Amino acid sequence: MNYNVSEKFKSLKPSAIREIFKSLGTPGAISFAAGNPNPSSFPVADMKRIADEIFENDPVTALQYGITEGYTPLRELVKARLKRVYGIGTDDDELIIVTGGQQGIELSCKVLCNEGDAVVCENPSFIGALNAFRSLGARLVSVELTDDGIDVDALESALKANPDAKLLYTIPTFQNPAGITTNLETRKKVLELAKKYDIIILEDNPYGDLRFSGEDVPTYKSLDTEGRVLYCGSFSKVLSSGMRIGFLCGGKELISKIVVAKQVEDVHTNVFFQMVCARYIEQCDLEGHIAEIRELYRRKAALMVGALEENMPKSVKFIRPDGGIFLWCSLPEGIDLGEFVKRAGDRLVFVVPGTAFAPDPDAPCRSFRLNYSMPTDEEIVKGIKILAEIAREMGAG
Amino acid sequence: MNYNVSEKFKSLKPSAIREIFKSLGTPGAISFAAGNPNPSSFPVADMKRIADEIFENDPVTALQYGITEGYTPLRELVKARLKRVYGIGTDDDELIIVTGGQQGIELSCKVLCNEGDAVVCENPSFIGALNAFRSLGARLVSVELTDDGIDVDALESALKANPDAKLLYTIPTFQNPAGITTNLETRKKVLELAKKYDIIILEDNPYGDLRFSGEDVPTYKSLDTEGRVLYCGSFSKVLSSGMRIGFLCGGKELISKIVVAKQVEDVHTNVFFQMVCARYIEQCDLEGHIAEIRELYRRKAALMVGALEENMPKSVKFIRPDGGIFLWCSLPEGIDLGEFVKRAGDRLVFVVPGTAFAPDPDAPCRSFRLNYSMPTDEEIVKGIKILAEIAREMGAG
Repeated sequence: MNYNVSEKFKSLKPSAIREIFKSLGTPGAISFAAGNPNPSSFPVADMKRIADEIFENDPVTALQYGITEGYTPLRELVKARLKRVYGIGTDDDELIIVTGGQQGIELSCKVLCNEGDAVVCENPSFIGALNAFRSLGARLVSVELTDDGIDVDALESALKANPDAKLLYTIPTFQNPAGITTNLETRKKVLELAKKYDIIILEDNPYGDLRFSGEDVPTYKSLDTEGRVLYCGSFSKVLSSGMRIGFLCGGKELISKIVVAKQVEDVHTNVFFQMVCARYIEQCDLEGHIAEIRELYRRKAALMVGALEENMPKSVKFIRPDGGIFLWCSLPEGIDLGEFVKRAGDRLVFVVPGTAFAPDPDAPCRSFRLNYSMPTDEEIVKGIKILAEIAREMGAG
Repeated sequence: MNYNVSEKFKSLKPSAIREIFKSLGTPGAISFAAGNPNPSSFPVADMKRIADEIFENDPVTALQYGITEGYTPLRELVKARLKRVYGIGTDDDELIIVTGGQQGIELSCKVLCNEGDAVVCENPSFIGALNAFRSLGARLVSVELTDDGIDVDALESALKANPDAKLLYTIPTFQNPAGITTNLETRKKVLELAKKYDIIILEDNPYGDLRFSGEDVPTYKSLDTEGRVLYCGSFSKVLSSGMRIGFLCGGKELISKIVVAKQVEDVHTNVFFQMVCARYIEQCDLEGHIAEIRELYRRKAALMVGALEENMPKSVKFIRPDGGIFLWCSLPEGIDLGEFVKRAGDRLVFVVPGTAFAPDPDAPCRSFRLNYSMPTDEEIVKGIKILAEIAREMGAG
């Protein structure tokens, strides 16, 4: 039969990246397309021991329904760490555990936006967030990124032109996909604009722990004095992405609405892994573990940067990452991105075309995203050489 | 600051049941309010062994991102069981793993309904589903239940009066909260009406495995020849509710849209417990395990029915359950439900007033729901005696 799906879902497509991800089985394929953490960042031995201990001593808590807000000990531990590491959290803030950062993003929009309301986002931005906003009938209003982060003047114009904007979605640190970190001055200006135009800032910070060069910039949430910032974090990049544990921190009243929204989506996040996270933080050295992941990514990023510098034609520009797991490259004018990505795929090197991250997928684009957390060292060197060969074949100088 | 939340969330309240659930800490409290499975239904020893084996042999699959559709071996095993046990599944059907049945319900509405569209539901019905529909801006149109299930004539009137209805939400087997099972003749008529008025039936069947008396009635999905039924099931009542594993089976094209909707909600369901479920089905005796749960609930239901027959004034009516975990009681005319529930709570016996399950919470109601899966035998006997005393005090004869 023919299904009459809702207007919002008629045109919504699965994420291009996750579709690439599914077709990576070919032997010899080199994928720079993933957004996955390196599996060596999963502390398997500790988790095995902790899992065993939970099944031994507290299985019913792990396997029975829990409360929507999340496992209380984990909430307290995450609050304490956010305070200690990022200066986040006031007496007026609350924290809810969500089923991965993705759910935090989706719930924020669901609770704040009516259908047709504008959500302001960066161009380019995380496809999973853009599609979440689309799935809720929000209208995407995009603002270009500069080297300093979101373009403040363009942001003000967008807010002026869209008085129905309720939410600014930003990834200020090691932005996905562009790798840019918004500087402090820009963050302060953005906060002022948010106040002036009365919008909520959704600060998505999945990579904030993964800085391997330069100095930390204060989060929006740590600069927020009035509960205007919703901070979304996750254990996906530092403990495990498959266990789907994230968190949202924001003003109490707003979080209480998000609790209601989460209750009708999945009742609560799986309790067992909330307990695993809590015990890991209590019993193990999370900061030391994160330091090891940073060191791994520092090395892999340097290897990719070195391979690009050595092999890639100079007209191909890229942003040197200070953290995170992505590197953003731009082809020179006159080289067709679609053709470049296709030729790379034909030679079994997979990259994500920038069009996948565009609020307007039909806008012209010459950039692509490379991931360095997943490929082996050999794959990085070999894959970048192939991409450089293709760029030359296509006329890049 | 004051938050300007979306219209849909302005009036939406947390589930009254889950709020009761939170305040059950008082020593000596007897709760008939839960919807939880008895913890003895969690196969802890087997799960511990399986978890250990996964961490030993396949930790990266468990901890890394997975595909939105779900862990392939689990999907195949669930499809095979649905076919074997319920005769469900054609070549045109597909199955997706969801984060508990709750997510299956919410996604179905999200993909099928525009804001303002009508969702037809039973009165009374599962509060989690009603709130999910409300959270998506759907308009609830309720149809009364008879002893045979949904009132077919009232359903046709509702469909005639609401041509924008896209979805009929029904719990045809051991209905929550009313305990009624829709008979086969009614199911056939409802399917005909669904075809005539071109709506999708969302068949929610979390308790179908828990029959302890009488004969199984074929599911809507097994009677469905054209992909008009979405079947929602769950492992929450037979393996663990905290692990949040459910599934949706329906027409391929519709499930492909639900995959997109799920991708933007939580990317995928936690992989580890999908693997635990798959290995449990492969290695252990799921049907034997379910038979033990049925036996436990048969005994507990009989104990509660016996206590009600022995103690409760005859004017208090109840429906004798053939399965599931709930018993539905109705006070006689003239006895105020709110006062009855309050007096019970004052004596530390917690029940859920029927108003919590009403599509229209302001409609008059004299019924309440009792759960028998969680309380101990002693609590069942003592709690029912107290409820009977209160009913008498309030004038029930």
